[in-house]
Amino acid sequence: MAYYAATVSKLIEEFQKMPGIGNKTAQRLAFYVLGLSKENADNLVSAISEAKEKVGYCKECCNLTDSEVCDVCSDLHRDKSVICVTESPADVVAFERTKEFKGVYHVLHGAISPMDGIKPEDLKIKELISRVAKGDVKEVILATDTDVEGEATGMYIGRLLEPFGVKITRLAKGIPIGGDIEYADEITLTKALENRVDLF
Amino acid sequence: MAYYAATVSKLIEEFQKMPGIGNKTAQRLAFYVLGLSKENADNLVSAISEAKEKVGYCKECCNLTDSEVCDVCSDLHRDKSVICVTESPADVVAFERTKEFKGVYHVLHGAISPMDGIKPEDLKIKELISRVAKGDVKEVILATDTDVEGEATGMYIGRLLEPFGVKITRLAKGIPIGGDIEYADEITLTKALENRVDLF
Repeated sequence: MAYYAATVSKLIEEFQKMPGIGNKTAQRLAFYVLGLSKENADNLVSAISEAKEKVGYCKECCNLTDSEVCDVCSDLHRDKSVICVTESPADVVAFERTKEFKGVYHVLHGAISPMDGIKPEDLKIKELISRVAKGDVKEVILATDTDVEGEATGMYIGRLLEPFGVKITRLAKGIPIGGDIEYADEITLTKALENRVDLF
Repeated sequence: MAYYAATVSKLIEEFQKMPGIGNKTAQRLAFYVLGLSKENADNLVSAISEAKEKVGYCKECCNLTDSEVCDVCSDLHRDKSVICVTESPADVVAFERTKEFKGVYHVLHGAISPMDGIKPEDLKIKELISRVAKGDVKEVILATDTDVEGEATGMYIGRLLEPFGVKITRLAKGIPIGGDIEYADEITLTKALENRVDLF
């Protein structure tokens, strides 16, 4: 990047550190920022600074929040006896979009992955165990991803929770709605067949 | 985005305004920023603020620079009589990488595009004309892109410069080096055939 002015190079480098942002995209983002009005640039900078300052983990469910306890956990209408365990805050948003789930969440912030050096103690598993240990929980839905890491993490946590005698469930696996069976992969199709349900 | 804490939503929105950044990527970038150490977040913020503060257009060639005149224009070894006209600062970087071009540049900051509402007066064309009008320029290489907008912009500027009696050139068009003729598109292949050169 030696051919840009130093300040421009530095900006490009900062964008290039972001996940999934290569050299070309970083340049594009840098040019975008340089083309912003003073006001819009200030908005961007203050959104970053403010998020870094205010956002932390909910002391109940470890989801991202800008208050001590997140909106879901502080909502009296939510059923605290059902905990849906997810890998990321984005997964919580996906569930909230369904408007169907009335329980609460627990965000692990990742999945166990020896390949990436992510160990159980790097995740918010201890926090989940102490929530369940308090005794008011009836069901834990392990909604980790259905890839190898997600399945292993679900299994690991399931084993840890077994002694507490709570109901432990995993999301149903099968053909996605609107999905074309022709294009379903073998493992999904096998699962869908195994878990077939009576129509009447 | 109503399911994230307000501060997180705002950060995601700011990223989503960036070109080519969709909702998913914006979330990913926001989580990346939230996961940064205090020091790294400060680096990001100061890179943005500093770039916005210091970077402007070179008063000679309109390339991005953090001084009054850019490194190329202030380099006494560069040949000021040859101007290579490009659409963007990234194009200048591409030429500099070749280490072959010893002239100077002129950055238009775009191409004429009625579809996108970009008119000639939105580009740094006036500035180019006044450079050529000073009389020390021998050749102007119109290195705009080879798409419709780039060709039209090159032709437009070429016409404007004709009265000054300087040499006006366009980059050669043909098969890229390492390119597979089998996969060359018809227009490129036609151009390459038209402009074929004697081997001996």
